Amino acid sequence: MLRTTTCGALTIENLGENVTLCGWVQKSRDLGGMTFIDIRDRYGITQLVFNMDDNIELCEAARNLGREFVIKASGAVVERSNKNLKMPTGEVEIKITALEILNAAKLPPFLIEDETDGGDDLRMKYRYLDLRRNPVRNNMIIRHKIAQAVRRYLDGLDFIEVETPVLIKSTPEGARDFVVPSRMNAGEFYALPQSPQTFKQLLMVSGFDRYFQIVKCFRDEDLRADRQPEFTQIDCEMSFIEQEDILNTFEGLIRTLFKEIKGFDLPEVPRMQYADAMRLYGSDKPDTRFEMQFVELNDIVKGKDFPVFDNAELVIGINAKGCANYTRKQVDELTDFIKRPQIGATGLIYLRHNEDGSLKSSVDKFYNEEELKRWSTALNTQPGDLALLMAGNTEKVRKQLSELRLEMGNRLGLRDKQTFSALWVLDFPLLEWDEESERYHAMHHPFTSPKPEDIALLDTKPGEVRANAYDMVINGTEVGGGSIRIHDRALQALMFKHLGFSAEEAQKQFGFLMDAFEFGAPPHGGIAFGFDRLCSIFAGLDSIRDVIAFPKNNSGRDVMIDSPSTIDEKQLNELKIKTTV
Amino acid sequence: MLRTTTCGALTIENLGENVTLCGWVQKSRDLGGMTFIDIRDRYGITQLVFNMDDNIELCEAARNLGREFVIKASGAVVERSNKNLKMPTGEVEIKITALEILNAAKLPPFLIEDETDGGDDLRMKYRYLDLRRNPVRNNMIIRHKIAQAVRRYLDGLDFIEVETPVLIKSTPEGARDFVVPSRMNAGEFYALPQSPQTFKQLLMVSGFDRYFQIVKCFRDEDLRADRQPEFTQIDCEMSFIEQEDILNTFEGLIRTLFKEIKGFDLPEVPRMQYADAMRLYGSDKPDTRFEMQFVELNDIVKGKDFPVFDNAELVIGINAKGCANYTRKQVDELTDFIKRPQIGATGLIYLRHNEDGSLKSSVDKFYNEEELKRWSTALNTQPGDLALLMAGNTEKVRKQLSELRLEMGNRLGLRDKQTFSALWVLDFPLLEWDEESERYHAMHHPFTSPKPEDIALLDTKPGEVRANAYDMVINGTEVGGGSIRIHDRALQALMFKHLGFSAEEAQKQFGFLMDAFEFGAPPHGGIAFGFDRLCSIFAGLDSIRDVIAFPKNNSGRDVMIDSPSTIDEKQLNELKIKTTV
Repeated sequence: MLRTTTCGALTIENLGENVTLCGWVQKSRDLGGMTFIDIRDRYGITQLVFNMDDNIELCEAARNLGREFVIKASGAVVERSNKNLKMPTGEVEIKITALEILNAAKLPPFLIEDETDGGDDLRMKYRYLDLRRNPVRNNMIIRHKIAQAVRRYLDGLDFIEVETPVLIKSTPEGARDFVVPSRMNAGEFYALPQSPQTFKQLLMVSGFDRYFQIVKCFRDEDLRADRQPEFTQIDCEMSFIEQEDILNTFEGLIRTLFKEIKGFDLPEVPRMQYADAMRLYGSDKPDTRFEMQFVELNDIVKGKDFPVFDNAELVIGINAKGCANYTRKQVDELTDFIKRPQIGATGLIYLRHNEDGSLKSSVDKFYNEEELKRWSTALNTQPGDLALLMAGNTEKVRKQLSELRLEMGNRLGLRDKQTFSALWVLDFPLLEWDEESERYHAMHHPFTSPKPEDIALLDTKPGEVRANAYDMVINGTEVGGGSIRIHDRALQALMFKHLGFSAEEAQKQFGFLMDAFEFGAPPHGGIAFGFDRLCSIFAGLDSIRDVIAFPKNNSGRDVMIDSPSTIDEKQLNELKIKTTV
Repeated sequence: MLRTTTCGALTIENLGENVTLCGWVQKSRDLGGMTFIDIRDRYGITQLVFNMDDNIELCEAARNLGREFVIKASGAVVERSNKNLKMPTGEVEIKITALEILNAAKLPPFLIEDETDGGDDLRMKYRYLDLRRNPVRNNMIIRHKIAQAVRRYLDGLDFIEVETPVLIKSTPEGARDFVVPSRMNAGEFYALPQSPQTFKQLLMVSGFDRYFQIVKCFRDEDLRADRQPEFTQIDCEMSFIEQEDILNTFEGLIRTLFKEIKGFDLPEVPRMQYADAMRLYGSDKPDTRFEMQFVELNDIVKGKDFPVFDNAELVIGINAKGCANYTRKQVDELTDFIKRPQIGATGLIYLRHNEDGSLKSSVDKFYNEEELKRWSTALNTQPGDLALLMAGNTEKVRKQLSELRLEMGNRLGLRDKQTFSALWVLDFPLLEWDEESERYHAMHHPFTSPKPEDIALLDTKPGEVRANAYDMVINGTEVGGGSIRIHDRALQALMFKHLGFSAEEAQKQFGFLMDAFEFGAPPHGGIAFGFDRLCSIFAGLDSIRDVIAFPKNNSGRDVMIDSPSTIDEKQLNELKIKTTV
């Protein structure tokens, strides 16, 4: 090794030792006849000291070093006169007797420090420099630790990691598949998997019993803050289990991760029906770091000639505790917030529970004191609280109030990134109506089993059939989801029929799986966690981009490297394709 | 869980317990009024017993079970009268009181047993059934265990696993790249990586210090027994190291794997110069499970008017110990072997060292007894040995004799799959001449550093420049290879120039890396292991196909699923490409 130790290792225990360090020049300062240089590597920072009186040439050389030069320096560990107890190495410095420049460096385009002066675009363009910064590198270390802990946990429970193919067959949901022209079979294409779903089910048919994989998946969609064209899943499947076993096994995984990575004892994860989550939070991924549940007010507010409420399918409210002192301007801000096009509400009604106990509403002329008291009771307001009410179509108004609830959570500081609240959401609908294609789609995927007691509803009320499907939500983010699968050919065929496939189409696309079900498929189910999202939660980040070493930018290009790129005519000819731009 | 324990767990310790097992019907036999069923899962096989006298209905149900039916069976653990001590569960059986069919099964197309009657094609078509067989499933378990052990070892040495992108930019070696049309950037293409080489070097520039990844890579080439279009690498890189550190670190990895997976103490791995490997074995990946080194005979055999030897650039021989009793027919077989078109030799000369001490050669008329004695001495033959000599152009004859040496190793049983011999091959040439393109190519890749003392030869004798490059060879298979990289912009630019790139081309293709070198790149180097090959060696297999759960067949199609497949017009339009078949 070029070094004898790292820049994070030396303490007062090492006094007198002769050491050699390698690393980057973090900063340098001259003080009288002395020069101090902080040398940095992944493990820490150590102070090097040079003295004009001891060795002019060496000290001059040190004074000529620029930021981010890569150096190798040797000397004796001595005690610092001016100790920095905040740093693990802050009690010592190295009295340098030999210095070598391993590589020079141009001045970096932004400061390589915890707080940088580099804007987002610059940081991304020079991602390899951004990754030198502690906060960004630490995200990658957290990611590594989570992956290791996941594997340890699952290996300990007899799960086997099996690699499934990346070059697969395109499927009917393939509109979002990336495709790969095949050279050997000109005119044909592989697809990149959106998930290893069918392969892991085949592994269950093969008797693998417990499978997992931390695996790249691909989806050719527009990018968002929390979506990349390539993403990583923790993909898991078990045989001979029921839903309860999956929930227990993977609640155990998440609690283990919180314990090992954050030193945090996550309490038992509460469970909520999908229908209740929609009713109480207007969302299938409620942020349960704070309460502020919806209160349904139809019975109380209707029939008082206030047309907005009378004409609404649903009137709901939340209690923003301690917000009675909101100014007119603040309330207007909230109204503007919900009127944004992406939320699309038309208005907001408030009930102010003043400190003196009096009640004031924005619709006073329709509701008297007595009636407002009934609002207050239903919404459980106390003096000092501000209730916020919205009305409209059930599905829409729930979504809108859900957005307002999250906004109030932000304003009230109830969504701290170092607080963690997990939730199981259970019993999702099996099917959801798609307006565009005018047919039902599988809410989870077509391999999800319906609840046996609801199968009879498939023909009559398909939208009411519940699935054996479950999501894990942490802090309002869906981090994982799964289901008990269909393992019976006839039921799988019925399911495809309800999704609008002809028998021929179903056989053509998924025959390989349905055929496999005829050779002894065990009952099985599983779950997949969004690894990027999970890591971003553990790292306390809003976006997944900073838990990915080399993310794509918003136009799907590598942050540094100009990809995608054109390929040449010769190669296109070999692939028997051509571009039609 | 549907079961209380697995089919591999019950022993005499569990007598009297009431248990429930789930699994597949392995076999069934009726014996008087009794029916015995072997139930199988991933963990083992347990015998179930049913008795007509106890419960006719249940016993009849058992008699109706077919092979591979999935069942759930409950009963008490009892001692077997007829014990099978070869099985862990062979002392007990379960006296069944409840039986449920979880799924029926059609008769499988081949026997689900260690030795199957299924041919290769049938096994592949029904891979999900083939994977139920112990030997195939055990390969996947070995693979899982190796992956876990690799991660444990490297994590213990502060290596961080970082995921690098799969959708990247196409590069000039891109002839073998798979390409992926981009929807967002119509007319442009991503490429799938042949290795994460440049990304891991950027991570070193970022100060990650020690990186690894077990990662899928892609190469669009014709398939062979040991090559798949998608393959897995253990990819590693370290900073502030010299070649010696890489060799030690990864020799440690391989020895750890042998210890943990095979219980085998691999001895210290010997090292050999590339030039010596070529001289002694005619190969840069010699199988060192056996000696049979080449002996160069020019000095001894030339000048005796035997034109084949006189005209040859090189005459070499090996000593096949104990083969003096080879018949004429056997020697002819060897001659036919080396005359095959894929080997292409023209003839074979032998020297038979008879048991009585006399020497006999196929070219007696050119060489007298005295001269043959000198051959014998050089080749170190003893009575009973057979030396085999070949002559020709140095490069060709070495390759040819290398094939013959391996063939003799096979014939003499010297290549046992449960014997392991590892070797480091060092100091590869930096460049190799490519006849087709009439220029030098990088033997390893363009980022490999030349030996400093050889840089001066780049202009005069480029073919003689040695690289800081090394391979690990096990049992004649190259399992890993790597190099100390260039970390200096000027040297990297010089390298590209020698590879025939213009400065503009080099900047266009690899500017992102060369630019990064200017911001403080540390000295670094690494290695990549072919994970599939490594697993096949540990599993004692010739082909990598059986360490891959779902391999491609020889036409690049998924073994079961008809992939690649055509995609529809609409999708092609969206991607702005069309096929030209």
